[in-house]
Order: sequence, then structure tokens, then C-alpha cells
Amino acid sequence: MIKAGVVGATGYTGVELVRILSRHPEVQLAGLTSQTYSEQSLDSVFPSTAGFSEAVLETQDIRSLADRCDVIFTALPHGISMDVVQEVVAAGKKVIDLGADYRFDDIKIYEEWYKVTHKTPELAAASVYGLPEINRKLILEADVIGNPGCYPTSIILGLAPLLKNGMVKTDTLIADSKSGVSGGGRGLNLAFHYAECNENFKAYNIGRHRHTPEIEQELGKLAGECVTISFTPHLVPMTRGILSTIYASLVNPCSTEEILDQYRDFYSEEFFVRVHPEGQYPQTKWVYGSNFCDIGLTVDNRTGRVVVVSAIDNLVKGASGQAVQNMNLIFGLDEKTGLDFAPVFP
Amino acid sequence: MIKAGVVGATGYTGVELVRILSRHPEVQLAGLTSQTYSEQSLDSVFPSTAGFSEAVLETQDIRSLADRCDVIFTALPHGISMDVVQEVVAAGKKVIDLGADYRFDDIKIYEEWYKVTHKTPELAAASVYGLPEINRKLILEADVIGNPGCYPTSIILGLAPLLKNGMVKTDTLIADSKSGVSGGGRGLNLAFHYAECNENFKAYNIGRHRHTPEIEQELGKLAGECVTISFTPHLVPMTRGILSTIYASLVNPCSTEEILDQYRDFYSEEFFVRVHPEGQYPQTKWVYGSNFCDIGLTVDNRTGRVVVVSAIDNLVKGASGQAVQNMNLIFGLDEKTGLDFAPVFP
Amino acid sequence: MIKAGVVGATGYTGVELVRILSRHPEVQLAGLTSQTYSEQSLDSVFPSTAGFSEAVLETQDIRSLADRCDVIFTALPHGISMDVVQEVVAAGKKVIDLGADYRFDDIKIYEEWYKVTHKTPELAAASVYGLPEINRKLILEADVIGNPGCYPTSIILGLAPLLKNGMVKTDTLIADSKSGVSGGGRGLNLAFHYAECNENFKAYNIGRHRHTPEIEQELGKLAGECVTISFTPHLVPMTRGILSTIYASLVNPCSTEEILDQYRDFYSEEFFVRVHPEGQYPQTKWVYGSNFCDIGLTVDNRTGRVVVVSAIDNLVKGASGQAVQNMNLIFGLDEKTGLDFAPVFP
Amino acid sequence: MIKAGVVGATGYTGVELVRILSRHPEVQLAGLTSQTYSEQSLDSVFPSTAGFSEAVLETQDIRSLADRCDVIFTALPHGISMDVVQEVVAAGKKVIDLGADYRFDDIKIYEEWYKVTHKTPELAAASVYGLPEINRKLILEADVIGNPGCYPTSIILGLAPLLKNGMVKTDTLIADSKSGVSGGGRGLNLAFHYAECNENFKAYNIGRHRHTPEIEQELGKLAGECVTISFTPHLVPMTRGILSTIYASLVNPCSTEEILDQYRDFYSEEFFVRVHPEGQYPQTKWVYGSNFCDIGLTVDNRTGRVVVVSAIDNLVKGASGQAVQNMNLIFGLDEKTGLDFAPVFP
Repeated sequence: MIKAGVVGATGYTGVELVRILSRHPEVQLAGLTSQTYSEQSLDSVFPSTAGFSEAVLETQDIRSLADRCDVIFTALPHGISMDVVQEVVAAGKKVIDLGADYRFDDIKIYEEWYKVTHKTPELAAASVYGLPEINRKLILEADVIGNPGCYPTSIILGLAPLLKNGMVKTDTLIADSKSGVSGGGRGLNLAFHYAECNENFKAYNIGRHRHTPEIEQELGKLAGECVTISFTPHLVPMTRGILSTIYASLVNPCSTEEILDQYRDFYSEEFFVRVHPEGQYPQTKWVYGSNFCDIGLTVDNRTGRVVVVSAIDNLVKGASGQAVQNMNLIFGLDEKTGLDFAPVFP
Repeated sequence: MIKAGVVGATGYTGVELVRILSRHPEVQLAGLTSQTYSEQSLDSVFPSTAGFSEAVLETQDIRSLADRCDVIFTALPHGISMDVVQEVVAAGKKVIDLGADYRFDDIKIYEEWYKVTHKTPELAAASVYGLPEINRKLILEADVIGNPGCYPTSIILGLAPLLKNGMVKTDTLIADSKSGVSGGGRGLNLAFHYAECNENFKAYNIGRHRHTPEIEQELGKLAGECVTISFTPHLVPMTRGILSTIYASLVNPCSTEEILDQYRDFYSEEFFVRVHPEGQYPQTKWVYGSNFCDIGLTVDNRTGRVVVVSAIDNLVKGASGQAVQNMNLIFGLDEKTGLDFAPVFP
Repeated sequence: MIKAGVVGATGYTGVELVRILSRHPEVQLAGLTSQTYSEQSLDSVFPSTAGFSEAVLETQDIRSLADRCDVIFTALPHGISMDVVQEVVAAGKKVIDLGADYRFDDIKIYEEWYKVTHKTPELAAASVYGLPEINRKLILEADVIGNPGCYPTSIILGLAPLLKNGMVKTDTLIADSKSGVSGGGRGLNLAFHYAECNENFKAYNIGRHRHTPEIEQELGKLAGECVTISFTPHLVPMTRGILSTIYASLVNPCSTEEILDQYRDFYSEEFFVRVHPEGQYPQTKWVYGSNFCDIGLTVDNRTGRVVVVSAIDNLVKGASGQAVQNMNLIFGLDEKTGLDFAPVFP
Repeated sequence: MIKAGVVGATGYTGVELVRILSRHPEVQLAGLTSQTYSEQSLDSVFPSTAGFSEAVLETQDIRSLADRCDVIFTALPHGISMDVVQEVVAAGKKVIDLGADYRFDDIKIYEEWYKVTHKTPELAAASVYGLPEINRKLILEADVIGNPGCYPTSIILGLAPLLKNGMVKTDTLIADSKSGVSGGGRGLNLAFHYAECNENFKAYNIGRHRHTPEIEQELGKLAGECVTISFTPHLVPMTRGILSTIYASLVNPCSTEEILDQYRDFYSEEFFVRVHPEGQYPQTKWVYGSNFCDIGLTVDNRTGRVVVVSAIDNLVKGASGQAVQNMNLIFGLDEKTGLDFAPVFP
């Protein structure tokens, strides 16, 4: 049994980790920390977990936690993870960070977009961007995983075959993404107040969302050249789900079916990526509560563009599910272990 | 492995059965029928199931299906199940009917409320009302299970300890229930048209909903006397979940904690009933996608009433999950098998 | 033109007052105050108001505001209004308080339920409970209006004819009410965080909600005797709307149509109360954005109870619309002035 | 008083016309027709209208209706309006068609995209595309108005200043639009079934939605050259509102403020277009229930693109409100008459 700890267990990605790990056949939850709710039982904070966990939330004591664990998941705001990660690594344990601190090859880019000085540049350099479908080999040997952002997961998986195969002009990329409100976390904010979100739809942070540079980093590696992208996030009046609609101009005319073939080929070994047949576009409900990334696309001959639609559950494939997928890889388990639950529909 | 068939697999309770059974470690899905979508693959109708089932939907041929199955779930409108059930029983196989046809001890009551003549009175007499927490022993030996209605499950479990223990006046019972829209099924109806339901709340069928008599039947057996209840269903702008707020006048004054003790005692062996501590009332989100029935209550000394709140997921404990729980009992499995997934929160 | 001020203009009832008053043909908005947003323009806080109001939010200076106004609406938390109201009255102007401080005939009851000492008992004694359909004559001559709570408006209007006519047993009253989330106000609170409310339904404050005593006060006066009621509020995943389902045992058997006749008679002169025909129950969407209270009911002969359903928009008839209705009365205008807009459907 | 009729009064745009026209100070509703509900009172079909209209729905008899009316609004599916419009024009009355039949300068384009043969090509040639902010002069003299589609209204108003001023490359236009579900109408369809839409988000008809050619027609006239656009509609789990996120590459670098200045200038006389300050993007809730089109934008220097966001209420500015705005123009009224209600927020 793998002994796992969660630092920051009472945010939405934290409690989603607990949901998944508590049913994982090869994992034992060895410790959960919370700043806000320490010394309380988990099920008093999240009554949904009653019957699944008798855990009491601990004050954060990383050394003690690392002693009891083989792997620690850090579900903390960016900038806060660095101290924790360093301490876990020093204790010789693996760490999967759900924040942004370990996602970048070049910490200057991190520092520029996040307005934070990185405290552990060596660890950042050694960390791996934990998108298994793209970086599986590197993940297998990593000590520190920078678990991808939710939007980037949907966009990188949505574009990877096109960029890898040189099918599109890299200066024409536009990702118009829409997220459920749980992506904003559990912290109070007027932007996530029910009466302000419900029966409402809006864009935010146009052209300056912090997920932009990690998207460009991974797309650039796939393309073998620098890539810029216009990225616009939106807030949808729903709890879970991200749908990205991605536009790119084709280098050469081709048919929808030809590109779908490339996608089916690229993802032929991937359980968690489902490529839909021509004429069918994914809906967020089709992946609700699951670790799937669903993809559909069409070639628009009138405009010379391909339009790709990808859908994930932002808290599963976009966060905690992908983190467990990374853990499975690191510990030599079947990647699907504990993650092969079906989407909840309707 | 138990070989299971689903008749009516493309309604919401049908596809929920497929979701649960496809991950059940002791079940093999042996056949799914659909009137509307026969000869189509299940995942073309419900893309959420892609990767979990390669089933092709069959035209309804019960004899052939029964030959391949140990148990058949019928997820059909009331009045339609009777022919199917008879044929399955004749083939010597078990049947769990998710409709109303086999829920009644007295078919006259069924016929009066449902305006249908029962075609198989002997089977109706031999069938068992499949609420495991109340009727477990009978279920173990049943050939035909009448799987409880969604509202009745929440109300009967919410009131059972009070009636069993003679704590409340049986002529003061009122159940004010609220259901998500999936309870209305997948059939098109202006009442379930998005723009008519969203940002809206309404009552319907006040005092004449067909779930009333099965509630009174089971409560009457618990109380040892005839019971009538005022039952008002409402439609909530959400997909899943039922919450029942139940009022009853106490025979003698007592404290909230005394009654909670009785509930904890009554349900002490029940994994799927979670009794909340004083001051905490269940929310439908806490049981989302799971087979739990959560219960909280308070004694209101000003009015001499106890107010009980119970919450279930109408498609799981209120339908398909409970059906699988019944199947587990009939086949001698641990009741939790394939059903011990955690609620999806948020 | 009536010059009107709003103290606390940036809560939901405040901005709803602005929406209504800015289109009122006989009103000029003379001043809006806000603690949080003072010195900002209203349309920077609520861009929905752009083009309708060029107001800049003022720091609270009641003397100055009262000088400029004929009437002041106070949209403040309970306990906070008292100082303001006293100052406005001292300046010889009318005040309509949307909080609870001036709703009670007996301030001991107020102090007991609200855990606050009342600072202006004489004003409280002179104030009028501003439910025009019940207290119109008193309102015409009032200086201080205690504008009714949202739940009480729906429940008192729903029960008034039954109690006035002595049709029901006054110890059998139960009001099961359901409210949209805007009723919780604009203040940040985990209970109103989008991901906690959406796709969720819950009860709260069972038997101890502070709206209980004002309901009992007004019902008692209608009945001519003391009345207690079981009142349970619930939170519905929608922004606006309250629906109350109200149960009472009949003194003598009678038909639905007989009671509907009494309601039609009781409300025959009331534009803002719409009594629905037999078999039709109001839905919150039917009153969305409007000042109507819609009522439907049925007699359940099996149980000897009448079940009444009433629906309002909690921010209009349940708060700001009713406040303007009171203002119209006080200033001798047609009660409908500025309030006769149609509900927004769908 | 203008006497107005509505053909197809029981769809969502029809009942929204009734909501607006019933409060319009210069209009008398002279007749409402419905195929489905003829001979029923309007308020039995839409109880929200009780107290505002005593109309009884008529079977469609255009000659009789035209005799009683000065103007007729046709709220019918495309292809169906043509016979009605011809008859109204023959009777010498004005007609405002909310469908697509009279939106096109070139009926070949209409016939190609709608797969229908146009029956009245002369009327189509004489009709005017009823977007007042762009075509006001032509509208003033028109007999037949082709009222714009909902998506096109948001996109054309969003792009007009950029194209008129030659600021963007016309082969780089992408409109990613999101609509509430009421845009799908009141007809039953699994795509608009509550449990299929709620807590879900999807794209549909990518690159082939029928609103594409009218967008290109009007943008082309503004640009003075042929324009193609990639247009992707999406369905948002809300009832009302359209938000379009529009991308275009700039011909020359410029600042956000420079472009905003052009927008403020272009729309300086337009009450119903509100241009937001830099850094603020419109939300659909800000225009809920109103006739506004709100616009915000940003220049993204990293990619050389301008991103425009526009928001409307699809049933008001996107349909019935705009139709009344057109009527006001035709009959020489102030354009705002009956339309200057404030948005409902929250």
C-alpha cells in the first residue's frame, strides 16, 4: 500500500483527492492537513465523506507527515507550495504539486506571470510537467511533479496531435475556454457568490490568464518551435467541467476525417482520451466526475480552419484525478488504478 | 459472475444501472434493450459510457434475454412491466422491477391509484417491496422485487424509527418533498423543458401523487396501524437529488438527542443510512451520485413537532443503486458490493 | 416628485430599490449611501444600472440625506437601522425600513428572537407592519414602516383568508418555504458560495428562523387569537423567488372551490395578489421580477387538510417592490405606480 | 395608439413581445394567434401574464388580423413566415418578421443555407435588415423588416466599429458565441431537456450554423468587402443571455484605449449600446431582461489581436425588444419608447 498525504485537504481539489484516494485499492490515506479546519474531523467539514474517512485534519507539520508518507499531494495556492515541496523532497519522498510552482521549465517565465520569486530553482528545473499522455516517460522517473492546470490540460490535449504533426500555423492558435465555478476554489469571493454567477456568463482575464505560459510551453515543445496563443477563460453557471473551443488555421487543406485519424492514432493507447466520431462534439456532462478528456473536431473549409473541442472535469482530469494518474505512474501501478469510474450522467 | 440484463436501458434509471453494473466486480452485463434506440451502440446514445461498455442495444426479446441472464432489471413505465416480469419468472430468473407494478401488497390500491388493471396478481402477491433497510429478510428470498419509488425511499427511511417506536401521532404526518428534474425521466415534456424548469420552483400533484399509497403501506406496517400522510412533491432546478422535510406531532415531549439516539440505534447496522449529529441537516449534494440516505432531525418544542430531513440521490438510492443493493442481497453478496463509491462533492 | 433616499444601496434589496425607483414616474432619487463603495459611481458597482443612474454613492450622513429627501428607505441589517430611523424621523421625514427592527408590536419578542436590545421602543410602537393587503389603512398614516420579511409576506398572504374566516385549526399550521439564494444577501458566506449551492438543496434554521415571530404576530391578529406555526426555510439553487407550501387542518370539510371563492373575495381589490384557478399552483417563475404574490390551493379530503401554495419574487414583493408599494400609499399615489411591470418569463 | 398583432404568440419570442407591448404606452395589442393554443386565454398558457392581458389566442386568420392592425409581428419558424408576410403587405400594413426569411439581400444565400425556396423574392429584396444601430435610415422607410438573429445582433454590434474603420484583417474573424437555452425555443427537443442541459456545456453546429451568412452579409457591408467568419455557437446552462467573444487580428498595433475611443464615438448616439471602460467586460446578467447590448474589449499585444466581448438578452435585444425598437422607428416614435426598463440584477 502506498501511504499518501494531502496538504491542503479542505479545498475542492483537496477533498476530490480524498474522494479518489479513499477508494483507491493501493493507497492508504496517511494524513490530511488544513490550515482552516485543523483538529476537526474531515466529515464534519465535508459530510459527504462520512463513512469513507475517519481522518482528523492536522495542522501542517510537513516533517511529521513526510515520515508517515510515500507521496504527498500539495493542494495549495501558488507561491506557498515551495517550502513544503522542498521539505518533502529533503525527506526523500515524492511530491505531486497541484499548484503552478513546478510547471515551468524556465522559472523566469513563472516569475514574470506569477509575480513571485521562486525559492527552489533546482527543484523547479528537476520537476516534470505531469501530463501523462504527453510526458509519460519523464513522469516515471520524477520526484516532483508539477500537476498541470485545468485549462492547459484541456487545451494541450486538444491541440497536441495537430502541433506534433505540423498540421496548423502556429501563429493562428486561439483557445476559447469555459469553466465551471468550482475552478475558482472554495475561498470566498464576490465573483463566485451564487447570485452573481447563476444565470450569468462572463469572460475574464482576457489575454493575461496565468495558465497561458504553461500552455505555450508544452505546445512549443510539441511543435518544436515557439508558440503563442490567444487564451480567453470564461465562467459557466455550473459547478464542474471545462470545455475548450480551439481554433487554428490549417497549413494544407484536409478533411475532418483525416485529422480525426491522426487523433485516433496519437491517442490510440490512451484510456483517458476519447476521440469522438465526426459530427459529434464532447459535452462537459459526458465526463462529469471522471478522469476522461473527450475530444471532437471539425474542419471548416470555408475559412481554412480546424476547430477542436475538448472537455474535461476540471477537478478530476483537470486536477486531482490527473494527480492520482501521475502517482500511479510513479509507483509502477496501472495508470487507471482507482480512476476507472464512469462519468455520472445525467 | 452474475449475468444481468436491463430492459429499458436508455432511460435515466436504465443508464444509471449500466453505470453501476459496468463497474460491479461480480456482474457481467449480458444484455440491454431499448425500444427507441435498438441496434445502436450504447455509447452512441450515451457518449458518457464510451470505454465502459461496448454493448449494442437490443430489441426487446425477453425469452432470449432471460436465457442469457440470472437477473433482469426492468426500467419501464408502470403497467408495461407486468408482461416482462411474468416471462422472466416463467424462465426461472430473478427480476427487479424499478416501476410501480410490484410494490403493493393490495393490488386494489395499485389499481385505484394507477388506473390500470393488474395482469399478474399472484406475482404481485409474492413480490417484495425492496427497501433493504426495512425488508431485508424478505428480499433475501424474493423472486420479484418491487423496487421502491424515489420519494417513498426518502420518506419511509426518514420516518421508520419514529413509527416503529410509536413516537408520533400517525394522523399528523406531512411529507414535503423536493426532487431534481431527472426524476421526471428522459421523455420529452414541457414540464421538463429547460427554460421552464430553470430558475423556477413549483409544487405539483398535491395530495394525489401516486407515490402516496406505497408510503402509507410501508409506514402502516411499521406503525402496526393504518396511516395516512399528506404528501406534496416539488420540482427543484437541479438534476439529481431528493430532499424530504417531514413533520409529525410527538406523542410525548422529548429532546432532539433522544430521538437521534433512536435513529442511530435503528440504523446502527446500515452502511447506507447516515444519521447526522444534532444541528446538522442533510443536503442533497452530500449524497450526489451515491447510494446513501442521509438523515437529520430536530424537535421543535414550541409546536410539539419533530421535523425530519432526509436526502437521497433519486437515481441511486432512489432507483438504480437500491436495485443493485437488492440484487446483491438476492445473490448472497455483501450488500455494498459495487455501491461503495463516495458522493461527488462539490 | 417624491425625493427618495436609499441607505444601504449596494446590497441586493438596495440595488433593486434603485432599479424600481429609477423608472418610477413620481420619484427622484436624491441620494444613495454605501459603506463599502462610498465615493464610487453606482454603475461601477452595478454595471447593470449604466444609463439609468448617474448617482455617486455617498458615505452615510443621515442628516444631510434627510434634508434632501421626503422618504428614506433603509436597507440595512437588523439592529443597525434603529439609529438611522430615529434620525430620519427627527428630521420629520418618512422612513421605510427593510430590516426587522420595526416589524414588531411587542419589542420583547423582537429582542428575544434577535438577541438585540431595541433602542427606540416608542418608534417601534408607532411603526406599522407594511403589508398593504392586510394593513393598508394603518400604512396610510404611518411615519415608520417595518417592511415585511420575504418569507412572512408569502406565508401571511397565503393564509390570511383562512384565518380571517376561521376555516382552519390554528394549532395545525405548517409553512414549508423555499427561497432563492439572493435572499441571503450580497455578503460573502460559504453557504452562498456558488459551488456549495448549485445542484444542491437544503433546509436550514428549522423551527428557529427569525421570521417566525412576525408570521405568528400577523396571523394571530387575523385569527383573533394566538397562533404558533412550524416554519422551515430551504435554499433553492436559483437566484430569485420564494415558494411557500402551507398546511392546515380544516375545521369543517369543504371543497377546494369553496375556499378559492373565499380567497377571490378576500383579494378582490388587490392588483398584486393573483389567485389561480383550481388545479393550478403558482410557480416562482410566474412572478419573476414582479410585485405579484400568486396563490393556489387544494383541499385534500383524505387528510382533512388544505394545502396552500404561494409564490413571490423575494426581492420585489418580498422586499423592495413592497417597500415602494408602501411609499406609494403613504404619499397618496396609486399603489401600482412604478410597480406594474410584467414578470419576466421565461 | 398603434394597433399591433402577433402571429405565433406562444413561443418565447411571442410571449416576450406580449410582455413588452402590453406595457408600451403607444401600443394596443389587437390580436394574438397561436396554432397550438388557439381559443385559450393567454394567461392560461402563460400565467405570468395574468393581470396584463385578457387576450384570447386566435386561430391564424391573417386577413382578419391585418384589418385590425397597423403592424404585425411574425414570430414563426423560417419558411413559414413568407405566406403571412405577403398577405400583410398586400393589406397595406407593416410587418416585422422575427424569423430569417427577410434578412438576406441575396435570396440565393438564404436558399443555400436554409434549404428552402423563397416564395416572395420581391418582398425579400425590398425588406430591410432591422438592426437599428446600423441600418436606421433604411428601417424608417421599410414595409418589411427582417429582424436580426440573436447571435448576429451580438456579433455585428461587437465588430461594427472595427470593420467600418478598417482596423482588422477581415480574414481573421472568429466569433465564439454562447447562448442561454431559451434561444432554442419552446418546442420540445432532447437538446433542451432540463437534465441534458443543466450542469452541462457544449458546442453545436460548428462552422455551419445558419446565422453565419447574415453575420457575413452585414459585416461585409460595413467593411466594404466580402468577409468570412468562423462562428461557433454554444449552449450555456442558463435561460437568457448571449455572450460573444470575438477575435480579430489588428492591421496596425494600437492600444485598447484607442479602440475603445472608436467604439464610444461610433455608438455615441446609441442608448441601447453601452461601451464598458478598459478592463471591464460585459456579463450577460448585466443586460438581463433589457434591450441593451453591452460591449467591452481588449487589445492583446502579445498576439496582435483585439478581443471583443458583447452581451445581450437573446429574447430582448436579440429578438422581441429589437423588433419593438424597429416598430418605434417605423412609426416615428422615440426609439426607446416602452423599452427603457432596467436590467433585472441579480
